[in-house]
Amino acid sequence: MSVDRLIEAIDEKQNPTVLGLDPQPDHIPPGILDTFVEERGKTLSALCGAYEAYITALIEAASDIVPAVKLQSACYEALGPEGMEVFRRGIQTARAHGLYVIADAKRGDIGSTSKAYSAAFLGRTEFAGVPLPVFDADALTVNPYLGSDNLNPFLQDCEKYGKMVFVLTKTSNPSAAEVQEQIVEGRPLYEVIADQVSASGRPLAGRYGYLNTGIVAGATQPEAIRQLRALHPELFFLVPGYGAQGGSASGLAAAFDRDGRGAVVNNSRGIGLAWKKTGKSLGDAAREAALAMRDDLRSIQYK
Amino acid sequence: MSVDRLIEAIDEKQNPTVLGLDPQPDHIPPGILDTFVEERGKTLSALCGAYEAYITALIEAASDIVPAVKLQSACYEALGPEGMEVFRRGIQTARAHGLYVIADAKRGDIGSTSKAYSAAFLGRTEFAGVPLPVFDADALTVNPYLGSDNLNPFLQDCEKYGKMVFVLTKTSNPSAAEVQEQIVEGRPLYEVIADQVSASGRPLAGRYGYLNTGIVAGATQPEAIRQLRALHPELFFLVPGYGAQGGSASGLAAAFDRDGRGAVVNNSRGIGLAWKKTGKSLGDAAREAALAMRDDLRSIQYK
Repeated sequence: MSVDRLIEAIDEKQNPTVLGLDPQPDHIPPGILDTFVEERGKTLSALCGAYEAYITALIEAASDIVPAVKLQSACYEALGPEGMEVFRRGIQTARAHGLYVIADAKRGDIGSTSKAYSAAFLGRTEFAGVPLPVFDADALTVNPYLGSDNLNPFLQDCEKYGKMVFVLTKTSNPSAAEVQEQIVEGRPLYEVIADQVSASGRPLAGRYGYLNTGIVAGATQPEAIRQLRALHPELFFLVPGYGAQGGSASGLAAAFDRDGRGAVVNNSRGIGLAWKKTGKSLGDAAREAALAMRDDLRSIQYK
Repeated sequence: MSVDRLIEAIDEKQNPTVLGLDPQPDHIPPGILDTFVEERGKTLSALCGAYEAYITALIEAASDIVPAVKLQSACYEALGPEGMEVFRRGIQTARAHGLYVIADAKRGDIGSTSKAYSAAFLGRTEFAGVPLPVFDADALTVNPYLGSDNLNPFLQDCEKYGKMVFVLTKTSNPSAAEVQEQIVEGRPLYEVIADQVSASGRPLAGRYGYLNTGIVAGATQPEAIRQLRALHPELFFLVPGYGAQGGSASGLAAAFDRDGRGAVVNNSRGIGLAWKKTGKSLGDAAREAALAMRDDLRSIQYK
């Protein structure tokens, strides 16, 4: 079970942090950027080189501290096909460092199309009986708007290849409420979604009582997290929004179970941009920020 | 206004068909596939070569019949970074043939991430003041689950670069109802979404009264199409599900306004797989199917 692997990776590092690898041009230290601009001009290719150097440095700096990384697909897509190659190699680099890899691509479509997305991110593209791996992450974020047709192909690959999904349920952005908190039969839509994720039924719960179908529940909404945890002790949470988006460790307490399990907490800018605030090197600043976040999360009193 | 360009392209061809370019390994005629397998083995790269030859043949066969194409991003992502290069070049080839290009990627995320998706598909990636085009389609499909934070960056690029979006509202798949027909204040969620798309307010309506923010409304749900058209005469519809998914021309009548405008109707398998049914060449079969669909759509009685 993929969720068990994630839980054991967290237990081993005593740290539920996910390092977010979400590069933007202005996130890269000038020293790195300049090298590639000299070589390739102000081009997408120069950014690709810089992004790869940047995320590799972050992985190397934090791989003994964090159990997992999350790559935001959009950042790499914004550099085109070569950016997707950086995304692919970033997943490989992270896995080579023993990290659990979440592809944050928020895909969702009709069944036959989801099958192609699932092949891309979790499974294999089948070609005349030959299964060909593509991006091959450990987990993928999935959008629920198209219902179970969309989810099923991903679940099949979860079973077949030992992967997991996190379905967007309650996101961390300011306008999340516009759709997710619409009231359906007396309760917010995001609770309906959480029920559907839970009822998707397979894969069955793993060693620690969690399903391979988790949900995204933003740190900016502690009350929603509390309610979702109470309703769904079997759902593992991917929690974005810690730090830059305003979520705090105390607000996160409710995401975890009594054993301190049940959630991973993403931090992208707080670690990847620490070099800007501290004046230290990219690696040193990231390492320090990752340790500080680990200690902050360790201070949570689980109930 | 991008929606005006689309409408004028439809008017010129007297045909509201969108040719869907959604390749799968078993869609490709053996003659094309074998050439690339001989050269590259049973690899993703062989599939990339075959996909490019296949979609180029479809574009060449139908470019004087249809006004627009829609590329399903998932099919190309399933071949990895090289597949995304085929996607990129497919967009360029279609534009070189004078076609309006819809990127069907159904993206949706928090604002800062949507900005990167929008740069990838509609706008430009900004690098030290240099705007770099990436996939550069004319229109993009967008998922509404994250609310207006998600939509806004796309709308900004629509204004800046003359593009449009189609927001998933009522999709054509069997499980669409599980989320989209949840009842919110006495009406289905998809109507709430359509209201939000309409209220997003900009860009303003173009020459024909349609906004640059359209919606996806599936052909498999004629009643929903009728209701959405009645509620929102200002929203342009992208209608999937004609043919293979069970939608018919008579069911589509309500999508159009009295002048026969207001919608484009996608067909992927009906045109791209016609060679299998007819025993004719890929190009001849596609051409015949595209002409038959055009005539079918021309038979609609607009009310």
